[in-house]
Amino acid sequence: MDFFQRHQSILDNAIQAVHQRTFFAQYPEHPSPKIYGETADQEGREKFQQGLDKKFKELNQGDPVDWKGDEESPYLQKPLGIQYPIYNVNDLIEKGSKAFHSWRKVSPEDRAGILIESLERVKERFFEIAYATMHTTGQGFMMAFQASGPHASDRALEAIASGYEELKRFPQNALWDKPMGKYNIQIQKEWRAVPKGLSLVIGCSTFPTWNSVPGIYASLITGNPVIMKPHPGAVLPIALVVSEIQKVLQETGNDPNICQLAVDTFDQMITKDLAEHEQVKLIDYTGNSDFGNYLEALSGKTVFTEKTGVNSVILDSTDDLDKVLGNLAFSVSLYSGQMCTAPQNFFIPQDGIKTSDGQVGFDELAQKFVDSINGLVDNPKAGPFVLGAIQNKKTCDRIAQASQLKGKVWLESRTIENPMFKGARTATPVVVEVDASQKDLFSSELFGPIALLIKTENTNQSIQLAKEMAIKHGAISCGAYTTDGKLKEKIVDEMSLAATPVSFNLVGNIYLNQNAGFSDFHVTGGNPAGNASFTNPEYVIKRFTWVGFREPVPA
Amino acid sequence: MDFFQRHQSILDNAIQAVHQRTFFAQYPEHPSPKIYGETADQEGREKFQQGLDKKFKELNQGDPVDWKGDEESPYLQKPLGIQYPIYNVNDLIEKGSKAFHSWRKVSPEDRAGILIESLERVKERFFEIAYATMHTTGQGFMMAFQASGPHASDRALEAIASGYEELKRFPQNALWDKPMGKYNIQIQKEWRAVPKGLSLVIGCSTFPTWNSVPGIYASLITGNPVIMKPHPGAVLPIALVVSEIQKVLQETGNDPNICQLAVDTFDQMITKDLAEHEQVKLIDYTGNSDFGNYLEALSGKTVFTEKTGVNSVILDSTDDLDKVLGNLAFSVSLYSGQMCTAPQNFFIPQDGIKTSDGQVGFDELAQKFVDSINGLVDNPKAGPFVLGAIQNKKTCDRIAQASQLKGKVWLESRTIENPMFKGARTATPVVVEVDASQKDLFSSELFGPIALLIKTENTNQSIQLAKEMAIKHGAISCGAYTTDGKLKEKIVDEMSLAATPVSFNLVGNIYLNQNAGFSDFHVTGGNPAGNASFTNPEYVIKRFTWVGFREPVPA
Repeated sequence: MDFFQRHQSILDNAIQAVHQRTFFAQYPEHPSPKIYGETADQEGREKFQQGLDKKFKELNQGDPVDWKGDEESPYLQKPLGIQYPIYNVNDLIEKGSKAFHSWRKVSPEDRAGILIESLERVKERFFEIAYATMHTTGQGFMMAFQASGPHASDRALEAIASGYEELKRFPQNALWDKPMGKYNIQIQKEWRAVPKGLSLVIGCSTFPTWNSVPGIYASLITGNPVIMKPHPGAVLPIALVVSEIQKVLQETGNDPNICQLAVDTFDQMITKDLAEHEQVKLIDYTGNSDFGNYLEALSGKTVFTEKTGVNSVILDSTDDLDKVLGNLAFSVSLYSGQMCTAPQNFFIPQDGIKTSDGQVGFDELAQKFVDSINGLVDNPKAGPFVLGAIQNKKTCDRIAQASQLKGKVWLESRTIENPMFKGARTATPVVVEVDASQKDLFSSELFGPIALLIKTENTNQSIQLAKEMAIKHGAISCGAYTTDGKLKEKIVDEMSLAATPVSFNLVGNIYLNQNAGFSDFHVTGGNPAGNASFTNPEYVIKRFTWVGFREPVPA
Repeated sequence: MDFFQRHQSILDNAIQAVHQRTFFAQYPEHPSPKIYGETADQEGREKFQQGLDKKFKELNQGDPVDWKGDEESPYLQKPLGIQYPIYNVNDLIEKGSKAFHSWRKVSPEDRAGILIESLERVKERFFEIAYATMHTTGQGFMMAFQASGPHASDRALEAIASGYEELKRFPQNALWDKPMGKYNIQIQKEWRAVPKGLSLVIGCSTFPTWNSVPGIYASLITGNPVIMKPHPGAVLPIALVVSEIQKVLQETGNDPNICQLAVDTFDQMITKDLAEHEQVKLIDYTGNSDFGNYLEALSGKTVFTEKTGVNSVILDSTDDLDKVLGNLAFSVSLYSGQMCTAPQNFFIPQDGIKTSDGQVGFDELAQKFVDSINGLVDNPKAGPFVLGAIQNKKTCDRIAQASQLKGKVWLESRTIENPMFKGARTATPVVVEVDASQKDLFSSELFGPIALLIKTENTNQSIQLAKEMAIKHGAISCGAYTTDGKLKEKIVDEMSLAATPVSFNLVGNIYLNQNAGFSDFHVTGGNPAGNASFTNPEYVIKRFTWVGFREPVPA
């Protein structure tokens, strides 16, 4: 089967989309029966349930030394009981290194065909992956479906398209024909895009496919074999993706070890052993800054990180305060603030903000924000599904600490009941007012549904603090609300220097937490929140080296 | 004056050349009176001579705290007596940081126009720059003219073209129009290519313009102000370039401090103070590996290095041994081996090599190589001009040490007389035979005219050693001579894994030391000889960050 030929139009469209940066989606985000089939949802749920308390046997990477698994459902607060094959680090490295020498010789066309085919197979399992994501990350169903399914696959396709384009950017061969007066020097030249080698992708617990597939596919399209090391708490979603990649590799006569899954457990983590191994040349990572900084400092590796940051919202003026607060209430509540893009620091002038109904004071604004959050989380048709569940118990501790901060607690966090999962670990947002002078309180990421209302002298101070936080501590997103065109340009300019994207005046069904494949670069790479970006050219270019060869043309 | 409009066709041609990678040169490499004018040579020499023992007053970057200069001519072995303005580090940083905020707001078009105009002005001074280069580096006139003049300017233009293309690669604005069923979400998006900040370019003593202008122009086109810190021994060539950039900046109403010259002296080097300053975000460096590794390890900087390596020649078989050895004799003699691309390790099978006249034994080959070198260096019409002079006295010490190596000395280094400069510091190549087992002898760069003939078991061992040296110690070039197609592919494959370009079967007037702008990527960035490449896309992309801004379209 010539998968390149079959999928060439997908690839062409994706490459075009990378450059147009308008709306493009290869994989429909709505879990509609009309698109995915009337029985897809039920079948996916059943498949997920059938896999519980069993060995995961879909991988094709040789005999394991053990079977283990640590996953627990945040909705059930009990283990999933799935056991994954366990491999020794040296075994993984050896198989990956062997696979390197076959995969690097596969043409970019064939690699692209194989990888897109794997995405087409993954599409058939979006519902199963969605349930796997819900019960490992705590995401609500809709987010689990979209983020781990179509949005992740679109990001993967974006990486394939970007990588393919870079690989084809320069001619494979050229005749260098230099006039020397009475004769010409003619040199035949050839260039090869040489992959750097074994690639390690380190997954996170909250977005097990969305944050990992860009690195996996970027490394694979550029000829590097991948070892996918998932977070021990969120294995199944990416295990399903890796198994589909392996199946297509095998069907096409390639070594399935070109993409291996390296599961470990909380009591025996293998991440450092893999990362420090001299054969590992590329590392992709999503997670906390401490470990990310350790990885970035490893010598002899090309490292792509998405770490932590403190995201700001600058509130200055608006024509429709209710819509603004509704939008922001959703942003802090969505997946209980467990998104790297969730806003945390809300900078509000002490005199309040300008609205079409006149000035709204700080306290009034705070109370309206709290009301808006309560309206959302207490709505039984919305709250439980928007909030989802809390992935990690430690997040609950952090929420408890937040209401002990030296500031006025405008809203305490509560648990709410999920009508489908009585045992779900839930937490609604906590809202605390602090002063701009209490910088230590808002200078680090408080992961979870924690919102700080920071009272500033004025909007200029808000901007300066948002910029300073981003430069010193990193930021992945920023929201700003202003009706003043000059101020908007000032925010753009100042936040651009902090390499932080800004969403202005978002209301309605679009949130600053959301970054769209093929259009929004996710993480800029320019501040401490990460050194890489989905998917700018650097993200794929750094995975291979251009090497030239030349020889005179015989006279 | 709209320099963009004036120079747009130069830019367009350069961008096209970057992608075609065939022969392209904007600036003619031959110092012909027909091209550069009948009086250009004489005028350039006179201007150079008039500047000796004087203050260099062409810069336009404010009042200095002192005037100093350490340059000595390797041809005269006496000081040039030129004094350059000296500035405090903090002053340089402050002026550069201020200049950042104006330069970053200049459009890519205007930046390109200004920078190309500066190259057009530099062209008018190629001869003066050539003499300045001769009398700081020791290069022969022809190399000094070509390398510091047209070849450097072509590399600079290549960096401008690559940077400009990347800056224009994505749309500045796009409407993201997402169908939601009954309505569309419309978001207006904007992207800015945000320059990283102050850029430090650290020059070397042997190629003061060629190795520095790519970094200077790559940083400038992408909006970053530059502080050029030349080697104290080779200031004048790049001082002339910087002064021309400053003049065009000033004429166009820009701050001349967008490109500053930061001269220091051997007894008070300021490189580390500049490099470690928190305002410095980008560093370009050419020089020894120790300092390069120190720079690469600085946190919070984007660093581009060209360091040292051990370049190999693999000798297996040839149809024309005399031409091969003539070519290689030239390669080791050219500028007395003081090129980063000069070959050092010649791997020769113990049984010799296959030729059209039958097998030629190791000893016979060695003797023929020696004869070929002697033929060149003893030719008074060629030798002195090919060899040039030795830039640094320490290189002479290294040559002396080489003949003390535990191996058979096939050729001792000698001095030769330069007919134009009686006091020139010269050294002809030393050739020493060592065994493949004496790895410690050939595992580091022996900078200068030092050739090691390494006796291997066979060509396979030659390839393995060349690859190992490149992977462990870096390599910028590799030569290979073989008439065997399968072996050639093996060499390509093995050396590609060491990220080392290979020149096959070079004879005639083309040498493995030479890398052509717009065609050969210089240094791959994939082995310890350097982490960057002139000029691959990474070289410019890493100098700025894509930052996005978005806002819903009002309903």
